[in-house]
Amino acid sequence: MAIRRSAALRESAEEYAAKRAQILVAAAKIFKEKGYAATSINDIAQASGVDRATLYYYVSKKQELFELVIRKPFLENVRFAESIANSQVSPTEKIRQFTIGLMNSFTSNYPDLYVYMQENLLQVTRDSEIAAMGRRFEAAITLIIQSGLKDGSFSIAAPPTMLMYALLGMLNWTHRWFKPTGKYASDEIGAIFADLVLGGLVRGALPRELDVRPIGIRRAD
Amino acid sequence: MAIRRSAALRESAEEYAAKRAQILVAAAKIFKEKGYAATSINDIAQASGVDRATLYYYVSKKQELFELVIRKPFLENVRFAESIANSQVSPTEKIRQFTIGLMNSFTSNYPDLYVYMQENLLQVTRDSEIAAMGRRFEAAITLIIQSGLKDGSFSIAAPPTMLMYALLGMLNWTHRWFKPTGKYASDEIGAIFADLVLGGLVRGALPRELDVRPIGIRRAD
Repeated sequence: MAIRRSAALRESAEEYAAKRAQILVAAAKIFKEKGYAATSINDIAQASGVDRATLYYYVSKKQELFELVIRKPFLENVRFAESIANSQVSPTEKIRQFTIGLMNSFTSNYPDLYVYMQENLLQVTRDSEIAAMGRRFEAAITLIIQSGLKDGSFSIAAPPTMLMYALLGMLNWTHRWFKPTGKYASDEIGAIFADLVLGGLVRGALPRELDVRPIGIRRAD
Repeated sequence: MAIRRSAALRESAEEYAAKRAQILVAAAKIFKEKGYAATSINDIAQASGVDRATLYYYVSKKQELFELVIRKPFLENVRFAESIANSQVSPTEKIRQFTIGLMNSFTSNYPDLYVYMQENLLQVTRDSEIAAMGRRFEAAITLIIQSGLKDGSFSIAAPPTMLMYALLGMLNWTHRWFKPTGKYASDEIGAIFADLVLGGLVRGALPRELDVRPIGIRRAD
């Protein structure tokens, strides 16, 4: 406590905020590398260049660090998805803007959003605000898809929720392989992903000469 | 040790194998619910109805349990993907068979394959055989996609590896929401996912009146 109090006396509010931000950056990096459960407060203290006692002067526990890392960028993405869902552009354009914009957010918030994505949220936090953000996010994407099914832009015959999970899966799985410093930029990947799903959304299933046959049964030709 | 030795004397090889299989079922269920890092050997012992000392008579450590849970179904899927990649059906049909077959494997091996999917493998095991399976699996899917790009079945302009990750992401992300007891069967989901991506793979990008505009710039109309 003596250390923490003396630190408080020396530090201005700006210095405190800067130090805390620096700890969040270190925490995000380690959460991403090791996973939430395997990360210790000691790991984060060490990576931040502070001792464990000092770290507790900036955050109360590991779970708070996780929530602080993800809350802001996640909320931005929820608002981004909702603004697209409520915009006046065509459903096709909505999918394209959402897909490219979400991929770009993974770059500009790297690795914070991936820290969220690689965890099963319920295994980490019961924070009701963050859970609510997840529901709003999925609802906004579902609304975008529904708008296309409703106005006839999309002709695929499928439940909107399943299509939402398909698109979200494609995007969220990038946490396993995408790096902002890699071969392809996030907006290139987003544009290709949009082409890929829009082909199916807009133009529906392929003609029936390519119809589904049971697995393991070969064609006669 | 006395307990373990006396158990060994009482148990036939069949009884041993049956008990071990029962422990694996319990382990898979808990790994799925809590995640690997947060699961303790005690959790698994408790769920299997044996004490911790007895559990060690069947497996050496938590990591071995994880590897035993995933190894067999994962290898089956690698061979399944390779058999499709090497088959004589059309690239479109390959995608369809792979997508439906993989979804069905999630049902028939529930939750074992999802235990694998929800973990970043390198955070759990450095087992080189399992890592090699992962590479074979991704290579087989990439080969399927390449076969379609090469023979002109697919007209999308995109790197095969990126398309592989898109398809894999869509499928693997089902670990967050799909349950075999849910509203839709795995083969229905697989067929819809196939329609969705084949629309883009086979027919390529949409006509240019729907071209990509920078995010945030509205259309004049």
